[in-house]
Amino acid sequence: MIIVLKSHATPAERDGIIQRIEELGLKPHVSEGEERTIIGVVGDDRGIDAGPFEALSGVDRIVPILRPYKLASRDFKPDATRITLGNDVVIGGPKIAVMAGPCAVESREQLLQTARAVKAAGATLLRGGAFKPRTSPYAFQGMAEDGLKLLAEARAETGLPIVTEVMSPGDVELVAKYADVLQVGARNMQNFNLLRECGSAGKPVLIKRGLSATLEELCLAAEYVLAQGNRQVMLCERGIRTFEKATRNTLDLSAVPVLKEWTHLPIVADPSHGTGKRSLVPSMTLASIAAGADALIIEVHPNPERAMSDGPQSLTFDQFTKLMQQARAVAAAVGRTL
Amino acid sequence: MIIVLKSHATPAERDGIIQRIEELGLKPHVSEGEERTIIGVVGDDRGIDAGPFEALSGVDRIVPILRPYKLASRDFKPDATRITLGNDVVIGGPKIAVMAGPCAVESREQLLQTARAVKAAGATLLRGGAFKPRTSPYAFQGMAEDGLKLLAEARAETGLPIVTEVMSPGDVELVAKYADVLQVGARNMQNFNLLRECGSAGKPVLIKRGLSATLEELCLAAEYVLAQGNRQVMLCERGIRTFEKATRNTLDLSAVPVLKEWTHLPIVADPSHGTGKRSLVPSMTLASIAAGADALIIEVHPNPERAMSDGPQSLTFDQFTKLMQQARAVAAAVGRTL
Amino acid sequence: MIIVLKSHATPAERDGIIQRIEELGLKPHVSEGEERTIIGVVGDDRGIDAGPFEALSGVDRIVPILRPYKLASRDFKPDATRITLGNDVVIGGPKIAVMAGPCAVESREQLLQTARAVKAAGATLLRGGAFKPRTSPYAFQGMAEDGLKLLAEARAETGLPIVTEVMSPGDVELVAKYADVLQVGARNMQNFNLLRECGSAGKPVLIKRGLSATLEELCLAAEYVLAQGNRQVMLCERGIRTFEKATRNTLDLSAVPVLKEWTHLPIVADPSHGTGKRSLVPSMTLASIAAGADALIIEVHPNPERAMSDGPQSLTFDQFTKLMQQARAVAAAVGRTL
Amino acid sequence: MIIVLKSHATPAERDGIIQRIEELGLKPHVSEGEERTIIGVVGDDRGIDAGPFEALSGVDRIVPILRPYKLASRDFKPDATRITLGNDVVIGGPKIAVMAGPCAVESREQLLQTARAVKAAGATLLRGGAFKPRTSPYAFQGMAEDGLKLLAEARAETGLPIVTEVMSPGDVELVAKYADVLQVGARNMQNFNLLRECGSAGKPVLIKRGLSATLEELCLAAEYVLAQGNRQVMLCERGIRTFEKATRNTLDLSAVPVLKEWTHLPIVADPSHGTGKRSLVPSMTLASIAAGADALIIEVHPNPERAMSDGPQSLTFDQFTKLMQQARAVAAAVGRTL
Repeated sequence: MIIVLKSHATPAERDGIIQRIEELGLKPHVSEGEERTIIGVVGDDRGIDAGPFEALSGVDRIVPILRPYKLASRDFKPDATRITLGNDVVIGGPKIAVMAGPCAVESREQLLQTARAVKAAGATLLRGGAFKPRTSPYAFQGMAEDGLKLLAEARAETGLPIVTEVMSPGDVELVAKYADVLQVGARNMQNFNLLRECGSAGKPVLIKRGLSATLEELCLAAEYVLAQGNRQVMLCERGIRTFEKATRNTLDLSAVPVLKEWTHLPIVADPSHGTGKRSLVPSMTLASIAAGADALIIEVHPNPERAMSDGPQSLTFDQFTKLMQQARAVAAAVGRTL
Repeated sequence: MIIVLKSHATPAERDGIIQRIEELGLKPHVSEGEERTIIGVVGDDRGIDAGPFEALSGVDRIVPILRPYKLASRDFKPDATRITLGNDVVIGGPKIAVMAGPCAVESREQLLQTARAVKAAGATLLRGGAFKPRTSPYAFQGMAEDGLKLLAEARAETGLPIVTEVMSPGDVELVAKYADVLQVGARNMQNFNLLRECGSAGKPVLIKRGLSATLEELCLAAEYVLAQGNRQVMLCERGIRTFEKATRNTLDLSAVPVLKEWTHLPIVADPSHGTGKRSLVPSMTLASIAAGADALIIEVHPNPERAMSDGPQSLTFDQFTKLMQQARAVAAAVGRTL
Repeated sequence: MIIVLKSHATPAERDGIIQRIEELGLKPHVSEGEERTIIGVVGDDRGIDAGPFEALSGVDRIVPILRPYKLASRDFKPDATRITLGNDVVIGGPKIAVMAGPCAVESREQLLQTARAVKAAGATLLRGGAFKPRTSPYAFQGMAEDGLKLLAEARAETGLPIVTEVMSPGDVELVAKYADVLQVGARNMQNFNLLRECGSAGKPVLIKRGLSATLEELCLAAEYVLAQGNRQVMLCERGIRTFEKATRNTLDLSAVPVLKEWTHLPIVADPSHGTGKRSLVPSMTLASIAAGADALIIEVHPNPERAMSDGPQSLTFDQFTKLMQQARAVAAAVGRTL
Repeated sequence: MIIVLKSHATPAERDGIIQRIEELGLKPHVSEGEERTIIGVVGDDRGIDAGPFEALSGVDRIVPILRPYKLASRDFKPDATRITLGNDVVIGGPKIAVMAGPCAVESREQLLQTARAVKAAGATLLRGGAFKPRTSPYAFQGMAEDGLKLLAEARAETGLPIVTEVMSPGDVELVAKYADVLQVGARNMQNFNLLRECGSAGKPVLIKRGLSATLEELCLAAEYVLAQGNRQVMLCERGIRTFEKATRNTLDLSAVPVLKEWTHLPIVADPSHGTGKRSLVPSMTLASIAAGADALIIEVHPNPERAMSDGPQSLTFDQFTKLMQQARAVAAAVGRTL
């Protein structure tokens, strides 16, 4: 890190800062500028909180130099991580994975119909929520374990691996019993106990970016899982919260190439939550592919008008089938398959 | 709610929408405008998700009329809620409560010294974290139950009730054994399982606004706790995330009068997290009082330069003592005490 | 518009609101709900400010129903607007236009070299700034009329039409003498005098979205130009300001399909300003095409390391040439040419 | 500035960067860390654009050390600037100035009534818009010079100096003929030609923070005026645009103490625009005083329900008079007068 001193910092303040750096086993590197003195801290300061330095008398601000995550970074592992599910699904390779299905598991018929339809259209995984984080306590909260059982049944019939959300550390074991991929939702991206528990669950983890999380914080959320020894992590851009209300969220597609530069993890884009509007999902799905996403999350429902959640952003079977055809063309144009 | 139809919606689409409203036991109220048709939905639609209507063919958008929370609203309970702790602490009355203490419990000496100092300066509660939500897995994560025991010891000595954070549903019982007020942190404001668990814990709950949570979502988080039968909830403005980087967060002080209009719950302001800088805490503390806050959270540390977290925003004992004097003058100017 | 009354509004307040509606020549349409009364206002209230209603006693809030712009809307003009420049450039048709060139005109050689290179690679227009809006008064402010003359010279040689920024109402006449398209920059999107002046200039106008402008405000900026009788307006998404600092701005690509639903105007995407980083420009250019953009702005410089502004986001000639090839493939995949 | 090199930067890249620094007459100061090399640039680099360095091969990012403004900074001028208007109004001293009046000048009677009422209640200046920046071209655009004449008449009668907005460089001379303080509105904060023109007008300038402007950008806007030789500049916090829609804008009151640390200029707070709601103006006015504001802008109208703009946030005469009494008490509590 670099410590920038205040313009009127005294020599005593400067010496106090230097002493503190040395106490921590690091080396100070002082540059006296015309207007400001700056002190570089040499050594791996990743485990060291910048706060105490910021609190020292005479300090104007701290500039971090090293990225605060390590296991998630490209510097640490230059090769792209590929996550294999079952015999033939690979996430992070040239083939783009498509995770399709309803927002929530609502019934056996709803789920099985959807699983068959998305399979027929070419989806790679089946998604569906059994535990639903809802803003209001009065909204439908999901079918819980009954939903997980239906997901397992749909997998048994179609062969599609399952991705489903887990909301609480206490539920990780239960969800991991059924799911192929554990999803950590946007509202739980900084639920650190949940991340740690997922790190020990032995299943791949998909972490959705929080509504106001920076990309660096998203990488640090991955670091919580990776640090437990679970190296099968993928990151998902699903829209951030901004002042614009024309869309439910603002899909920050630049996150895809940025994260691919910073990390070796597969990057997922979710144009369904990212826009919140069915009419926008096709164009943003194609844009996600063009931006370089390794996988996509697309909500599909047999009858969106009757969906218990996220109906406005769910595609019908026909719309999804048509979109998959367009998606294949764009994938080919950027040298990938789908 | 009001359903605004698309400008080219057909009569069949309109009738489909009406039919759906009636199916749900509500009454449609159709207004045909020159350019648009709108349909008012009469009845308590609070438990009804707007999504399915938004997904109906011919619908342009849904305009909610009723606020989605009920138990938290002033309409439901016009009188201000007062929360009593022990014999003489009341939050929500004319006396403004001051919750002071370190960000994290670090050691017996650090905590007891601070407890004595803030008590002497006039603080009402002792705050301190035993479970710390940290962005990086490599940062100090708190002393856990050992920290809770130290808090209890500090209470025994000073008589100050304790407010401390709980991060996981599985820890609620443990934390509630020691704490007088359970704090749900900003990153957990939409950790719905945690909120529900706090609703059953029999202790007052302080909910901090999420970094990108709207005030309506904050009220809905309270609703999760209230709906479990726990009516002792207070809401805390602690800064939101914006584009401005001069401060750690942007303290949205207008939230104080807005929430006091909308709800009957006591409102807390946290100028320490809201600014992230010691030099800004005094002026924003005074501004919080002038804005009408019922309580304040102020971080205090015996030696901020050595604090394991949040040193840059912690006051020294002397700074806190001086601030309390200024705060009393402003409280008096707005007809309150401190 | 719809007027939602407060839950405790009195009959006298209700009558006052009704009277005011009638005074304005509109018809009130009252619905008494169980908890709230709402009053629909029937008639074209587009020219009527909602403020006075919001200020009436008993009013909780106003819900606009009609979009506040008219000439820019698809309802008003369902067919897509096509803007023709010279003999063969059409913006808004199946062929995607590429506006390429340096951020700022710096010298004759720099500009002519770039013009030839982008022409050879297939660009449709030449862009370059002669008047530069700079955050700091100490930064390079542009070559002014000398720059315009160089742009005209480059057009004479290459045949590429010119798009260049105008910053002040007093400069519109001068810039229009040289430019084929007048660009209103992001910082001037709500410089209403400038918009009005551009509306009278007889040249097509490209309006860039302000850093924190909603899409509705962008359409209203277009309305200022359209209302002067100039129907040749195109809108440009160039990134908005959010909390995320990994990119210079957050390119909100959903704006492309949203604006195409709302308006008939051609939509431009600017991945150069939208990301601020050269390494991100190619993927976001392809994503812009996949999202449906009618035109692109791409900054190109003979030697980005020596550019006087925006070097970090400028492509070299080779990078641009390579990107154009990839772009053609993606355009073809979505049924367009480039 | 500090230049942080990429982790894999080559010696040739490093040398290229060093060469470039030396070409610009500055001195490089190289620190080789274990994982990264950083190069400090010694000398006043304020006039040097960071862009070209950012564009150099091998550079990861640039960290500015010096603040980019000079004339506006406390380092340059430690003493607080005081702006004197007429014989007895001083802005920036112990007495807090109150700028009160209608959003827009609508008629002679409306303005004179208001001027008398705010004078009687203790206001220091009269505010009122003659040129109104309106989001929609169909909204009331102000009375222009007729409005300015009414303002001058109100001043003649009450003795209150006038603050009024100027929207266009071409209008500066006209507005300066009537006004005591030229206001640059939020939408024009980066209208650099307007700022420059105001710098030559010989009248004090009040610059409102843009809706998404950082505080650093606000200081740079001041720098445009100061650099023309006009040292009478004040800065105004009036709310920024965030995701929260409960208020019209989010009043960022921390801006007051931050700007007072960074600059020597008087700081104004505008709780009327900052909240957009009459019921919130009193508490946020008191909070602004407690936060340390040197002046306040408060909208007052004889009949807010009939106001042509900003009625919902305008106070009645009675409300303003009552607020002034409360404001005096809070000012006294923080050692100031009003």
